[in-house]
Amino acid sequence: MADRKQVLALEIRSQEGTIKQLRTNGAASTEVDAAVAVLKGLKQEMETLTGGSKKKGKSAFTLKTPKGTKDHNDKEMAIREQVFSTITKVFKKHGAVTIDTPVFELKEILAGKYGEDSKLIYDLADQGGEECSLRYDLTVPFARFLAMNGKEYQNFKRYHIGKVYRRDQPAMTKGRMREFYQCDFDMAGAYDPMIADAEILKILCEALTALDIGEYTVKLNHRKILDGIFEVCGVPEEKIRPISSAVDKLDKLPWEEVKKEMTEEKGLPEDVADKIGAYVKLKGGRDLLETLSKDENLTKNASASAGIADMALLFDYMDVFNITGKMSFDMSLARGLDYYTGIIYEAVTEKSAPPAMTDAKKPQPKTKPGSDELDESTVGVGSIAAGGRYDNLVGMFSGTNKKGEPNLKIPCVGVSIGVERVFSILMSKQKAEDIKSNETEVFVIAVGDGLLKERMEIANELWNADIKASFLFKNKPKLPAQWAACEKDHIPFAVIIGKDELERGEIKIKDMRSKDESQGGGVTIARATMVDELKKRLSGM
Amino acid sequence: MADRKQVLALEIRSQEGTIKQLRTNGAASTEVDAAVAVLKGLKQEMETLTGGSKKKGKSAFTLKTPKGTKDHNDKEMAIREQVFSTITKVFKKHGAVTIDTPVFELKEILAGKYGEDSKLIYDLADQGGEECSLRYDLTVPFARFLAMNGKEYQNFKRYHIGKVYRRDQPAMTKGRMREFYQCDFDMAGAYDPMIADAEILKILCEALTALDIGEYTVKLNHRKILDGIFEVCGVPEEKIRPISSAVDKLDKLPWEEVKKEMTEEKGLPEDVADKIGAYVKLKGGRDLLETLSKDENLTKNASASAGIADMALLFDYMDVFNITGKMSFDMSLARGLDYYTGIIYEAVTEKSAPPAMTDAKKPQPKTKPGSDELDESTVGVGSIAAGGRYDNLVGMFSGTNKKGEPNLKIPCVGVSIGVERVFSILMSKQKAEDIKSNETEVFVIAVGDGLLKERMEIANELWNADIKASFLFKNKPKLPAQWAACEKDHIPFAVIIGKDELERGEIKIKDMRSKDESQGGGVTIARATMVDELKKRLSGM
Repeated sequence: MADRKQVLALEIRSQEGTIKQLRTNGAASTEVDAAVAVLKGLKQEMETLTGGSKKKGKSAFTLKTPKGTKDHNDKEMAIREQVFSTITKVFKKHGAVTIDTPVFELKEILAGKYGEDSKLIYDLADQGGEECSLRYDLTVPFARFLAMNGKEYQNFKRYHIGKVYRRDQPAMTKGRMREFYQCDFDMAGAYDPMIADAEILKILCEALTALDIGEYTVKLNHRKILDGIFEVCGVPEEKIRPISSAVDKLDKLPWEEVKKEMTEEKGLPEDVADKIGAYVKLKGGRDLLETLSKDENLTKNASASAGIADMALLFDYMDVFNITGKMSFDMSLARGLDYYTGIIYEAVTEKSAPPAMTDAKKPQPKTKPGSDELDESTVGVGSIAAGGRYDNLVGMFSGTNKKGEPNLKIPCVGVSIGVERVFSILMSKQKAEDIKSNETEVFVIAVGDGLLKERMEIANELWNADIKASFLFKNKPKLPAQWAACEKDHIPFAVIIGKDELERGEIKIKDMRSKDESQGGGVTIARATMVDELKKRLSGM
Repeated sequence: MADRKQVLALEIRSQEGTIKQLRTNGAASTEVDAAVAVLKGLKQEMETLTGGSKKKGKSAFTLKTPKGTKDHNDKEMAIREQVFSTITKVFKKHGAVTIDTPVFELKEILAGKYGEDSKLIYDLADQGGEECSLRYDLTVPFARFLAMNGKEYQNFKRYHIGKVYRRDQPAMTKGRMREFYQCDFDMAGAYDPMIADAEILKILCEALTALDIGEYTVKLNHRKILDGIFEVCGVPEEKIRPISSAVDKLDKLPWEEVKKEMTEEKGLPEDVADKIGAYVKLKGGRDLLETLSKDENLTKNASASAGIADMALLFDYMDVFNITGKMSFDMSLARGLDYYTGIIYEAVTEKSAPPAMTDAKKPQPKTKPGSDELDESTVGVGSIAAGGRYDNLVGMFSGTNKKGEPNLKIPCVGVSIGVERVFSILMSKQKAEDIKSNETEVFVIAVGDGLLKERMEIANELWNADIKASFLFKNKPKLPAQWAACEKDHIPFAVIIGKDELERGEIKIKDMRSKDESQGGGVTIARATMVDELKKRLSGM
């Protein structure tokens, strides 16, 4: 316990520093709030450990959510739903369907898929029965689903928006959550080359444009070209993945440091590293493809040559889809996951994400086979989506035949949109009090005697006509309280009733958004026309 | 292990019997499939235990989801999304917002909320840090949220659709899932009496009508009347909850058996039981309210008298909302949860649910305080939604002041719609192959030479015009394969291109739903009018 207290004390100090820094940098208020919430959690944990919480009345509960998790209130959910529905609309336009998998999987399904990050997997307690773990991403469950049902799902475009779980480093100063949403789109099936790959890039561009988060660029590379480069430069086969993962840090570290990792940590001869250095600084568009095509060292290499042919086809298809302008063919993009077998890509926004979302100083080693998603913790500042082609993952689940070949081989290409970062960008663009989280269109207000049943009758009439309506649950509400409720919820129209008006068969409608003084206390209309009148006004919104 | 094998052998035999019975009863194919899946899981577990799985190639994985969980494929998800969106639309019409809480909570938050069913809570493994458990329902997290944020959320209509987790009895022959959706709507706030209660019943009726699952009745009772009856009949205070939970079984058991439980198991004198028996067989509408109001024994009792006054007001308000006809004021409705403090209700469909969903022979004890949802395992056949008023639950989380009173008191009334049962009713109404899970509107088909880039161009033009379009990812797909893909996905329109037509600036559109032979291979139109023509046809669907 003493140890934990010491760690906590350090974490609290570090988090206080982070908050100070965020405020100095003028970070978005939502980011500061998130960091403050983390600090509050740390302090509560400390209080529990030191027995301080006993002072507070008789409540036996620590009133908080578990570390690394949070509630999403109505305003946040309104933004989330808007993001999900925007993305889903794009996915559906391209024929996607959705599936749902359990939040936990058999432990053995996840085992051996995430390299050293397996330690971040949440296990369920042994309460008898099977050993289970919370899912770490949506890709491994998808591959498991395909391996189980592959015969029916050989031609399959699926999206999945769901929460995943990572027991991340106790240091929470990075604002990294232990429960967060992933939003994956994948195409499974054996197709002719690069057609699905081109469509997935088209989908990515459509989604990012629709999300309205500013300018973006999609960095693009091909694993076979990269592997060819490593071979041509003289990297021994067993070092290709570790060297690839060093290259992947080039978006955060200068070449000199990456080179140092290659030579000092990973034992690569300096001249080999220098040859790699010359290649990985290349970036461009079709011009780079031309350059590579003329490089005889590369074209003699089978892997590089296959990759270059793929890219030539891809550029053709991207031209048809009008997305080539958004692409940057970038030899330094390596992507951390071991299992990619073809094109890889990462979308970055031009404006960098808020500082709390990344930790540029200490990049983590990127060795997470078995996960096709955007790694929130390790992608560069501003990275908003990522993915690639992975043709062999499903085979890992399908078992092997007598010859040792997978029973089922389903090639896949996928993309994961970093929705948590999208939320944080969109939340930072607006004030919480300006977000309308309800959809109420009409508030029913009584002037004078309360008129509860009359208000209920009006609301009932509106509901039956599919108009979203509310009223105060009071017998005799004060008039200012009714106006306030209407304004607080940003409700666009008020229906105002009074005893005399009702007797004359009249009500008033007031447009709450209008500053037009001429409507005064509202426009009087015949009650019989109320629904039509409101529908007309609502359809014009 | 030997024990587990014996249990498994029994379970397998029992499950085989269930499947046989389902088939004999002509149960829906989805129900049979679900039961077969359970059997498959049991057999797999047995195979694992007996080492049988080693025979199957080299796959180290047991390819299955954890016991009691399942994948939901695209067809099932299409129905689920339709159900969720129907319900959500009704909730939003009444001003509801949504919040999201973590899938796991601190263990101490859930502790002591579910009585003897606490043993069904899934705990996370101790991997250092806080002790956590998967949520058992959505109500306790909601109460925790209110206790944490109550000042801002004193007037709060929230819905929450999410998964909950229960390590239910290893006997899975009931088709009960360990991971399943709940769909809760609750109103939190101190209002004038019975107004929110009436609106929640209105919402329930609107939702059930919109779901189109057939005729339904809402059974209605009031805890204060029921408690008054028990007091008047002479039930000692400490026995009121156990006796109430015996009454709650009247929808499944004859009175004689319930009486036996009261007298033999729970030690109630026989004459007291008989007095209760006379009351709990009463049911009706306003007429029953009249009868109770004239019963001087009851009206002298403070609790019963308060309950009768509430019900009188509620009937008035239900008349305004035009829902009284759907209600059955039913003295035998007790609802299992301890924490209800006011009205309680349960909606039942006229047609009973498929047999696999319930086990009428062995009702489980209904002692689950702290949960406001439909208990899938114990509610009567055909029960589709349930809820009630619970005014003291939030106070359990808020801590107490020096006087021992809760720091925060937020009265609540809520309803939980049994969406899993709704799904199973709706799924049983249609064949899987008839469900269109994608939304694709147009399939682009080439006659002749493949015309890949031309198909891509057409698709791109359609996507840019917000039309949902697909094509086959093949360079030279055969014509029959293209028609088949179009038909399999129930895509309503085909755009057919050929080299000659394209050169003439023409394409063909074919309405795939029409059996009209006159359109032949499609109607020829100018390519320039394609988008407009399709939009016109799609808007007429």
